[in-house]
Amino acid sequence: MTASIHDLNAYMAELGAAARRAATAMAAAPTAAKNAALLALARRLRAQGPALQAANAKDLDAAVAAGLDAPMVDRLRLTPKVLETVAEGCEQLAAMADPVGEITGVKRRPSGISVGQMRVPLGVFGMIYESRPNVTIEAASLAIKSGNACILRGGSEALQSNLVLAALVRNALAEAGLPADAVQMVNTTDRAAVGHLITMPEFVDVIIPRGGKGLIERISREAKVPVIKHLDGNCHVYVDAEIDLEQALAVADNAKTHKYSPCNAAESLLVHERQAAAFLPRIGAIFAAKGVEMRCCGISRRMLVDVPGAKVVAATEADWSEEYLAPIISIKVVTGLDEAISHINRYGSHHTDAILTTNHPNAMRFLREVDSASVMINASTRFADGFEYGLGAEIGISTDKFHARGPVGLEGLTSLKWVVLGQGEVRG
Amino acid sequence: MTASIHDLNAYMAELGAAARRAATAMAAAPTAAKNAALLALARRLRAQGPALQAANAKDLDAAVAAGLDAPMVDRLRLTPKVLETVAEGCEQLAAMADPVGEITGVKRRPSGISVGQMRVPLGVFGMIYESRPNVTIEAASLAIKSGNACILRGGSEALQSNLVLAALVRNALAEAGLPADAVQMVNTTDRAAVGHLITMPEFVDVIIPRGGKGLIERISREAKVPVIKHLDGNCHVYVDAEIDLEQALAVADNAKTHKYSPCNAAESLLVHERQAAAFLPRIGAIFAAKGVEMRCCGISRRMLVDVPGAKVVAATEADWSEEYLAPIISIKVVTGLDEAISHINRYGSHHTDAILTTNHPNAMRFLREVDSASVMINASTRFADGFEYGLGAEIGISTDKFHARGPVGLEGLTSLKWVVLGQGEVRG
Repeated sequence: MTASIHDLNAYMAELGAAARRAATAMAAAPTAAKNAALLALARRLRAQGPALQAANAKDLDAAVAAGLDAPMVDRLRLTPKVLETVAEGCEQLAAMADPVGEITGVKRRPSGISVGQMRVPLGVFGMIYESRPNVTIEAASLAIKSGNACILRGGSEALQSNLVLAALVRNALAEAGLPADAVQMVNTTDRAAVGHLITMPEFVDVIIPRGGKGLIERISREAKVPVIKHLDGNCHVYVDAEIDLEQALAVADNAKTHKYSPCNAAESLLVHERQAAAFLPRIGAIFAAKGVEMRCCGISRRMLVDVPGAKVVAATEADWSEEYLAPIISIKVVTGLDEAISHINRYGSHHTDAILTTNHPNAMRFLREVDSASVMINASTRFADGFEYGLGAEIGISTDKFHARGPVGLEGLTSLKWVVLGQGEVRG
Repeated sequence: MTASIHDLNAYMAELGAAARRAATAMAAAPTAAKNAALLALARRLRAQGPALQAANAKDLDAAVAAGLDAPMVDRLRLTPKVLETVAEGCEQLAAMADPVGEITGVKRRPSGISVGQMRVPLGVFGMIYESRPNVTIEAASLAIKSGNACILRGGSEALQSNLVLAALVRNALAEAGLPADAVQMVNTTDRAAVGHLITMPEFVDVIIPRGGKGLIERISREAKVPVIKHLDGNCHVYVDAEIDLEQALAVADNAKTHKYSPCNAAESLLVHERQAAAFLPRIGAIFAAKGVEMRCCGISRRMLVDVPGAKVVAATEADWSEEYLAPIISIKVVTGLDEAISHINRYGSHHTDAILTTNHPNAMRFLREVDSASVMINASTRFADGFEYGLGAEIGISTDKFHARGPVGLEGLTSLKWVVLGQGEVRG
């Protein structure tokens, strides 16, 4: 790094140019070298635990001194368990098939040429994230396996930890004969660095932000390159007219109460009017026992208000759009599948929605007509996750329709180019 | 249309809201209804030939009166042949498999759920194009088959033709029981309409511009939604050290001279130094006979300057980046595959590039390392085209890496959502 950090423009351009050079080498890197880098990284993460925790302690001390609340401080912490988890993640990625170079759908055309598609890296991605420093390793390892370069911009409160983690990654890359600049950490807490990172189309092909809705909206608005963005998760569970009652109770309970803070937790429960009398008092008792507040439409409110211990309040129009991330759920009785689908498409956030039903035509209509990144039949919305889907890891969850939708793994960091295999064909 | 055309903001919002409503119906439309609409459209195009040509005559008269040059006026003309071609295109689309609803890659996960992906429409696309009114039918028919709605903004010089064509499409949709608003034509020549169309993310999911580079750069810069854009096509043919000489001559000739104006015509010829003496005088004679000007590096210039009738000039640095769309080609002798690949990745436009070789490792390296939307072995760059690739039709050619790359057909107008098929699974 020769540019002074005080000349932010030159510094970011230098990172960008180095990333672009590294991306060319990474795109052509042998699978064996990429896997060797991932295994070296896992080994270094385990061997360097004490050094990592010393760097992490500086961030933790500063966070406590700055008065960050306990959950924020906890998210910063690189415990042995966190380090072991990311090391195992690197080993799992090494064991996965290389997505780069895969050729699919080759078909012979009447002209004589054969046409197919080859999967190739996107190039350089910029990642902007907050607090948890393990995201550094997740992003770096996905970049390595997918043959991309990345520029990482972690939270300022995790900078010391992130710099040490990035140095580990760079050493692992060098050990495997790959360019260290394939993974670079922005070494400044200056917020203006983000503004540069998202407006360098000559160096950065796509931006992946993780953070609060405000941050992501701002980045989407100001970026000069595509953004793989995750906005909110207002996920629905719809209980249809024909159900397996015990199964529906278990799934609705899990979708809401397994964890309250993830984006794939259910925030709204829709119940077919023919099931309301059987289903609502039972789920209401479960929610009451777990302290989940129920924000209800008129009908559901009357059916739930007498459940012992239930916190039942009248829902407002705003509740149907709300992502609570808390022990609160909105509840509405609907006249049928049509109303359920149109309610979800209107008020939902196109993240993850599930139908609980034993009726096949209804299940298929829900699958096709609900316009969300993940649509589920008889399963908890909590499964909407790169690991659960078998992607090996996820760089983020997209609520967009363009390019990648839902959990984004290795494939979301690649694109398909056309390949034409000829024997001297010319166009007539 | 109730909004006054003088209130452009309200008019465009009305088109947008109608498109959004129609998109919901189109996404759920039965395959049979979409095919019926396409066949009805083909029938109406043939039956309404005289009416269409009367509307077209108004545009042609106005174009001549406005002093448009002859090639521009020709592009406007709806000849019986043009109408028959677009009618056949509709029938071909009707005969193709429906991309919507296709479910792929379903795998059982250890949790018990099955996870796969379903292909669904993008929603609403806005298309901005110039002169040729047959694009109206191409865009409308692709929208119908892919289950999208579209808002079309054709050139002002083709407005009368486009309005009559759009009315045909809307009648065909209605005949098939589908919403006429799935295809709407912007009925004003006010240029500000484009500004509205590209900044309505609540109504329009993606913009597809076709036109000059300046227009497309401006749209990309100002759009608030993703743009599937096609910039220039600086396509290369690289003649490797080991070749079938006669085949290489035929392919290089075809790539340059089959047609000069398409974006997939070759603009630059790279020749391995070991083939230069054998290949260059032969291709030089072919180009000389067809009046193709050769802009040459020092070595190729010395080898070509004595070819009888050859127009040989010294290439400048700017020539390596130039898209001539004319009987001009730049020619450079290179030391080998490495130089060829890095030259193409540096000066090319990531559109279409071909290697001519009998060496398998070199062919595979070129395929993998050239960073272009279409990469070809022993075939003319002129094949880079939706019809030639078997897409049935193309809405455009993308020079981006994100989402769709190269010729964009039905699949490029769709995205993949995740589907989860469960039997009551919950997350533990």
